[in-house]
Amino acid sequence: MKRLDVILTVLFFTLSFLTLNAQTLKDERQYKETADKLVRSALIEKKAYGWLKELCEIGPRLSGSENSIKAIHWAENKMKQLGFDSVWLQPVMVPHWVRGKIEDAVISRSKNYKGKSLRIAAFGGSVGTPKEGITGEVLEVKTFDELQQNKDKAKGKIIFFNRPFDESLTNTFSAYGRAVDQRIRGAIEAAKAGGIAAIVRSITSKHDNVPHTGVMYYADSLRKVPSVGIGWLDADFLEKAIKKEPNLTITLKLDCSTLPATQSYNVIGEIKGREKPKDIIVVGGHIDSWDKGCGAQDDGAPSLQTIEALDLLNRLNIKPKRTIRCVLFVNEENGGRGSKKYGKFARKSDETNLAAIESDRGAFTPRGFYVTADSTVIKKMQTWLPVLNTALIDWVRPGGSGADVSKITNAKALLGYATDNQRYFDFHHSDNDILETVNPREMELGSAAIAIMAYLISEEGL
Amino acid sequence: MKRLDVILTVLFFTLSFLTLNAQTLKDERQYKETADKLVRSALIEKKAYGWLKELCEIGPRLSGSENSIKAIHWAENKMKQLGFDSVWLQPVMVPHWVRGKIEDAVISRSKNYKGKSLRIAAFGGSVGTPKEGITGEVLEVKTFDELQQNKDKAKGKIIFFNRPFDESLTNTFSAYGRAVDQRIRGAIEAAKAGGIAAIVRSITSKHDNVPHTGVMYYADSLRKVPSVGIGWLDADFLEKAIKKEPNLTITLKLDCSTLPATQSYNVIGEIKGREKPKDIIVVGGHIDSWDKGCGAQDDGAPSLQTIEALDLLNRLNIKPKRTIRCVLFVNEENGGRGSKKYGKFARKSDETNLAAIESDRGAFTPRGFYVTADSTVIKKMQTWLPVLNTALIDWVRPGGSGADVSKITNAKALLGYATDNQRYFDFHHSDNDILETVNPREMELGSAAIAIMAYLISEEGL
Repeated sequence: MKRLDVILTVLFFTLSFLTLNAQTLKDERQYKETADKLVRSALIEKKAYGWLKELCEIGPRLSGSENSIKAIHWAENKMKQLGFDSVWLQPVMVPHWVRGKIEDAVISRSKNYKGKSLRIAAFGGSVGTPKEGITGEVLEVKTFDELQQNKDKAKGKIIFFNRPFDESLTNTFSAYGRAVDQRIRGAIEAAKAGGIAAIVRSITSKHDNVPHTGVMYYADSLRKVPSVGIGWLDADFLEKAIKKEPNLTITLKLDCSTLPATQSYNVIGEIKGREKPKDIIVVGGHIDSWDKGCGAQDDGAPSLQTIEALDLLNRLNIKPKRTIRCVLFVNEENGGRGSKKYGKFARKSDETNLAAIESDRGAFTPRGFYVTADSTVIKKMQTWLPVLNTALIDWVRPGGSGADVSKITNAKALLGYATDNQRYFDFHHSDNDILETVNPREMELGSAAIAIMAYLISEEGL
Repeated sequence: MKRLDVILTVLFFTLSFLTLNAQTLKDERQYKETADKLVRSALIEKKAYGWLKELCEIGPRLSGSENSIKAIHWAENKMKQLGFDSVWLQPVMVPHWVRGKIEDAVISRSKNYKGKSLRIAAFGGSVGTPKEGITGEVLEVKTFDELQQNKDKAKGKIIFFNRPFDESLTNTFSAYGRAVDQRIRGAIEAAKAGGIAAIVRSITSKHDNVPHTGVMYYADSLRKVPSVGIGWLDADFLEKAIKKEPNLTITLKLDCSTLPATQSYNVIGEIKGREKPKDIIVVGGHIDSWDKGCGAQDDGAPSLQTIEALDLLNRLNIKPKRTIRCVLFVNEENGGRGSKKYGKFARKSDETNLAAIESDRGAFTPRGFYVTADSTVIKKMQTWLPVLNTALIDWVRPGGSGADVSKITNAKALLGYATDNQRYFDFHHSDNDILETVNPREMELGSAAIAIMAYLISEEGL
């Protein structure tokens, strides 16, 4: 190569590199105008926040409950009233667990604490106890390994899983993820070691005494022992009490039980694409909740944001190029039957599953989107940040989407709408999860963020 | 120029551009480790949140009040207990306004509403009324222009400034900025038009009935008329009521008054720089608050974050290269005498005022830093984002710093620590501004964010 050729070659690649990095969205100005309209409409009208009040009036809506069916029909009617192009129910059989009326934990033998009640909540799926309850001494452990190493002491005892939510982490979902094994597998591990029940420190960032519930599982090969969450302050108390009196006993009485599976539904509504109606962009959350509080943050408000994402486009008379479909999945909390059903449907359908966005991280101020997709798809979405930032989205990063949309295994991109999550586990799965914890502005910015992302995917493709 | 020269010149600039854009922080890994330690210590120990409880126990701390002096000595002692290298009080004379005990607004003539009380709060600096009160019909306006155009109708009336906080804006500080003229200049404009008092719709994002206060001014050449804020719901009521009955009257009774100026203090503490002790990085907020709630968000928690920023470095045994100084300014709310005093001191001092960071936007989750400085300084700080992101800082942008540090006019860089501000004006300047609105995690992440930024400036210079 001659010197000039070398220089020209270097120059060519350098300029190509620059061009690549300077890649921007073609119609950025127009998209920004649309995004601005969507944000303003959400913040002024606050429609989703109004719907949340209606949904919370129904009460908590655990899969299989009468309330859950009311909520499903409420959502179906809402979508119809809003004039979505089509609205339908997708039948799903769901488990039906009921808490019952008796849920007591009392210190039954102790010099210092006899008669003291502890605030507990049975985990969803737990068996109950005999009428006279289950009584045993307490063995405290922090990990399953520690329980295995102390197997000789575990027999006949109530196992107290006491590893707290790790508050040093900035991502509260990571802190939750590192503690939740105790709730999910605590009963299995307790039974394996010969224990008679499991009590788990509530997985929460709030130092109050409200017990948090959530799903738990059994192994078919092992004895089914009851498993409950205990309030943070009572966990502190119990930790100290058994140091002072290792032989104190707790008596646990529960009448929760599992009934036969019942008929339920995913709620689906959509706006047909004006050019490519068979290209589908799903936005969704879950319609079921735990039976505590009213499931305002999990997943009432976030799931309603996905209804409003469609309504925002509709009310501003924006016709998307591709179909945007809202799916409210049933049974996210204790079985995931709704997402499995929709995932199967999506794989069999002749539609193209372009993308799916899940909203299930509370209704706090927008921060970003996690995306599971090829890196080229993620890079493309990152060029949309100047538009997404209208709704305070600061980043698009590789990451997990959510429990529901991740079952749409043939989608090109799976997205998780990410919020400011510092407060989420103060409320999650507990009596704290009520309407009053939702800030209307924070919620409405989420509706707009999801609408903008869905619209950009619809217009730009992936 | 020959062809080759042209090519070489283009290549040179292109490569320079590339190098500039690829600029990264030299010791990024080490800084990230330090940042991680700061964040974890803040989130685990939650010391600033503990101090906030103590500060709120003192009560609200308006400049000139006994409480404000208690708070000043409490902060001075706190800094001494924490072992800062030096701690001192900087004397400042401050205005002394007192709300008094009578604060009533009643519909005094009306067919339908006679006797109805309206929830109001006098603005700081307002004159009181005669004992029998001030009675007048109401003229509603949205702007000062509208008032001028209706001057003939204004004489002898109570002017009702009714332009609401613009909820369509994502930045609540912008919404506040667009409405606050009504509070600040309402009495002046009312008097100019011949009005006898001003009632202003509370500048808030919350649709409750809690009136919000704040500073207001008079013009020496004009009559001083009382000026008060009215709760959002009562503003809605009044708007409707005067449509129905334009001749209804309100009687306003206030016994607020201004006492002689009193002695007060800025509270200052610092960690001496290990290499350049005369290079100063200020971090600070204001120690005074309004006399409503307990000033937890404005500016209790944010100002305590700046004490903790120093303590975080201290407790992790990190010795900064340059001096990091915490300044708690007095009288931010109604006069800014503290910041003027410190600004004057900074200009006369033989120290180098490198940077100053203000924390006065509530104690919510970190989002970014606004910076007033040369663009090269801002670009340099942007290369620190991978480190700052440890405390969830997503951006560094040109923008205003804050009312206090902006008086340090000879500083090289002025920074405003920016939070997720959606909820701020729900609480601001009202009885809603209490401890319970502060989330410990959100507050502590702010302490860490400020500590990291101050530390990076200290080590890297500007």
